[in-house]
Amino acid sequence: MESLRFVLPQSEIPTHWYNVAADLPTPPLPPLGADGQPAKPEQMAAIFPTAILEQEMSSERWIPIPQPVREIYRLWRPSPLVRAARLEQMLGTPARIYYKNEGVSPAGSHKPNTAVAQAYYNQQAGIRRITTETGAGQWGSSMALAGQMFGLDVRVYMVKVSYEQKPYRRSMMQTWGAEVFASPSEMTQTGRDALARDPNNQGSLGLAISEAVEEAAARADTNYALGSVLNHVALHQTIIGLEAKKQFELAEDWPDVVFAPCGGGSSFAGMAFPFFADNAAGGHHGKQVRLVAVEPASCPSLTRGKYAYDFGDASGFTPIMKMYTLGHDFMPPGIHAGGLRYHGASPLVSQLYHEKLIEAVAVPQLATFEAGVMFAHSEGIIPAPESCHAIRAAIDEALRCKESGEPKTILFNLTGHGHFDMGSYDRYFSGELEDFSYPEAAIEKSLKCLPQVG
Amino acid sequence: MESLRFVLPQSEIPTHWYNVAADLPTPPLPPLGADGQPAKPEQMAAIFPTAILEQEMSSERWIPIPQPVREIYRLWRPSPLVRAARLEQMLGTPARIYYKNEGVSPAGSHKPNTAVAQAYYNQQAGIRRITTETGAGQWGSSMALAGQMFGLDVRVYMVKVSYEQKPYRRSMMQTWGAEVFASPSEMTQTGRDALARDPNNQGSLGLAISEAVEEAAARADTNYALGSVLNHVALHQTIIGLEAKKQFELAEDWPDVVFAPCGGGSSFAGMAFPFFADNAAGGHHGKQVRLVAVEPASCPSLTRGKYAYDFGDASGFTPIMKMYTLGHDFMPPGIHAGGLRYHGASPLVSQLYHEKLIEAVAVPQLATFEAGVMFAHSEGIIPAPESCHAIRAAIDEALRCKESGEPKTILFNLTGHGHFDMGSYDRYFSGELEDFSYPEAAIEKSLKCLPQVG
Repeated sequence: MESLRFVLPQSEIPTHWYNVAADLPTPPLPPLGADGQPAKPEQMAAIFPTAILEQEMSSERWIPIPQPVREIYRLWRPSPLVRAARLEQMLGTPARIYYKNEGVSPAGSHKPNTAVAQAYYNQQAGIRRITTETGAGQWGSSMALAGQMFGLDVRVYMVKVSYEQKPYRRSMMQTWGAEVFASPSEMTQTGRDALARDPNNQGSLGLAISEAVEEAAARADTNYALGSVLNHVALHQTIIGLEAKKQFELAEDWPDVVFAPCGGGSSFAGMAFPFFADNAAGGHHGKQVRLVAVEPASCPSLTRGKYAYDFGDASGFTPIMKMYTLGHDFMPPGIHAGGLRYHGASPLVSQLYHEKLIEAVAVPQLATFEAGVMFAHSEGIIPAPESCHAIRAAIDEALRCKESGEPKTILFNLTGHGHFDMGSYDRYFSGELEDFSYPEAAIEKSLKCLPQVG
Repeated sequence: MESLRFVLPQSEIPTHWYNVAADLPTPPLPPLGADGQPAKPEQMAAIFPTAILEQEMSSERWIPIPQPVREIYRLWRPSPLVRAARLEQMLGTPARIYYKNEGVSPAGSHKPNTAVAQAYYNQQAGIRRITTETGAGQWGSSMALAGQMFGLDVRVYMVKVSYEQKPYRRSMMQTWGAEVFASPSEMTQTGRDALARDPNNQGSLGLAISEAVEEAAARADTNYALGSVLNHVALHQTIIGLEAKKQFELAEDWPDVVFAPCGGGSSFAGMAFPFFADNAAGGHHGKQVRLVAVEPASCPSLTRGKYAYDFGDASGFTPIMKMYTLGHDFMPPGIHAGGLRYHGASPLVSQLYHEKLIEAVAVPQLATFEAGVMFAHSEGIIPAPESCHAIRAAIDEALRCKESGEPKTILFNLTGHGHFDMGSYDRYFSGELEDFSYPEAAIEKSLKCLPQVG
């Protein structure tokens, strides 16, 4: 019986992360402060440890993974690379489809790859408590898990509407020992002000970030952690692609094309950057691998946004970064399920896209759920709505192979399972979800909020 | 870095299940009909395919696993055997603790091991539809998954109170294409009668079984499937222990004691019977392995029940079987969370216990959740409440090793994850759960419902 899973021994967990900054044609542009000058590290040092800030700005190609981090990775890594043979059969495609299953982590997604590293560096810096925000709950769960592993207290500001609608994500964080507050909360000035203006404020990710940052900035023993967008987050996630490359060697195969969902960009970066390293060095045995970021049509920052300086958060508190953005006050419609709602894309991903070194595609929502259900029917696993975006793109590619007869090798990042997203599947089955495409004028309008830079 | 996971290649998925009936000191007692005579196979043939009935009565030691079943097993099997090194460290025990992680199946528990086999045999017999019941939803999910894999329609009668309280288990079944009805339903005479008597009937497992069996018995293209108790279910689950033995060889270790949760008995049978095979043959290198069934103190069929003939279902429709039972109308208190609520224990498990070839222990509810949280804090994974019973017993054993200084090797069956049981964790954290121990008189009273046999 042929093996469909390519499993590395734990001794093969990579020893270094890959830093794509070393291989960019031009150096990454620095974040800028409100004065238009490069943001000073000391501004960030109030909320991030030095080791993280160094990684954020490093141009070293290989950065060692501390042994205590690898020891935690060992609880679920290496994650499996799996041949989706039943999906291929269902599609009748000559393509070979593989997925990297990041849903096997205890928190159910790829997010702990960076949460664990961030918890470690903070613990080493003498920090006792981490604050963070969470919307749907995936990042908050991951940080709660990671904090527990390194003995840090974790406080999660959870957008109030999610806090009320997704009580099981909250329970999960509490089981790992985290404190979870509905945001806006009474814990911070930002929260109290918001509640004073509107006691029924349902919260937003921007507000939750502001609460978490306010608390971290005010306390010496407390730092803040972010789950996407920034360079160090992309760096930590490269363990995904690095493992996948080793596993493709075991499988005696190699992808022609790689798909990963793209919201803030960390799961795409994690999967694609290690393959980009080969592309930059002339290709794998001379062959370039196509790297495709898959974003929701209802939040199309790469495919329809502008490459410009913008704030990282919705409220305009952070330094500004050069990235593809729809404008920081862009708000995806309520019909949109799940994650990938970020207004921009990671500066590193944006730069690669701007320089035409990677591709991007936007997929409509209903087609992503249709793909997720096809995957569940053939491969068993019920995927997270975010992952369904990559599955959709992989299926479309496999169907093109069926037409052309090309036996391409397709890889996608199964970023997580959907066990805490069954409410979205319910809404899909009951017809409550819709596709949504922005009129050009609406995007132009939201881009008017971009800050003016020199 | 030491490996904590012992992963078999997929080519090592066992080719045969182990049938413990071949190694019992005396043959298993047959189920009896209402007349006190052995139940006739033709009575059962209306709802089960021949291949399943043959397995139910077989005394062959090794029964081949059909290749199409192994090919579905391959979607998640072999499941990992994992050394719980961080749990050992937390306890400060010299014991080595291992767990077999059955939570990696797409449905999140060990239940698909038999659901897939049952779906296959029914499909081979020309059956087009399976009916079954589900309480908490684990079995219904597994049957929905398995039906989808073999192109069978699946109808699940889900106890109404669960249908309403656990909508995400229902969504999961629907995602795999199953029809799910709140029981009592309008689909069957049993359901209509129950609703006529009480339109607000909240349902019970007994009622849901009756609905599923009624539909299966009435339709030639429809069969019924049961997820525990029966011999063929125990048989299919032995893949767990068979894999574990191969993995212990890789680990160059061997368990001194094995713990598994025990409700109906399938997860205990699946893990323990293959080790019993060695015990029956004189031991592994002459050493006997202790095999311990762990049941809830609030439903203590092995430790406080009677070894007697009783009905398999709460309503008294099935043939009667010799087993440890609390009486088929025994009802665990509402404070009890999760599964393991069955009034009896599998006849095979019961016979082994009666003959003192295995052990049993009952654990109180709060201590099981405490153990589950310790496991989540150390190993990351949030376990199902059923699994927490085995974890509790394993931790208690490891703490005894700490006192005695013995470096025992402990194995337990992590039967599933708790992603759909966070409501129970919530109730635990908020202090809504309680321990409950029956007064002797209450058990004596419930035992009065036992049928009179020759």
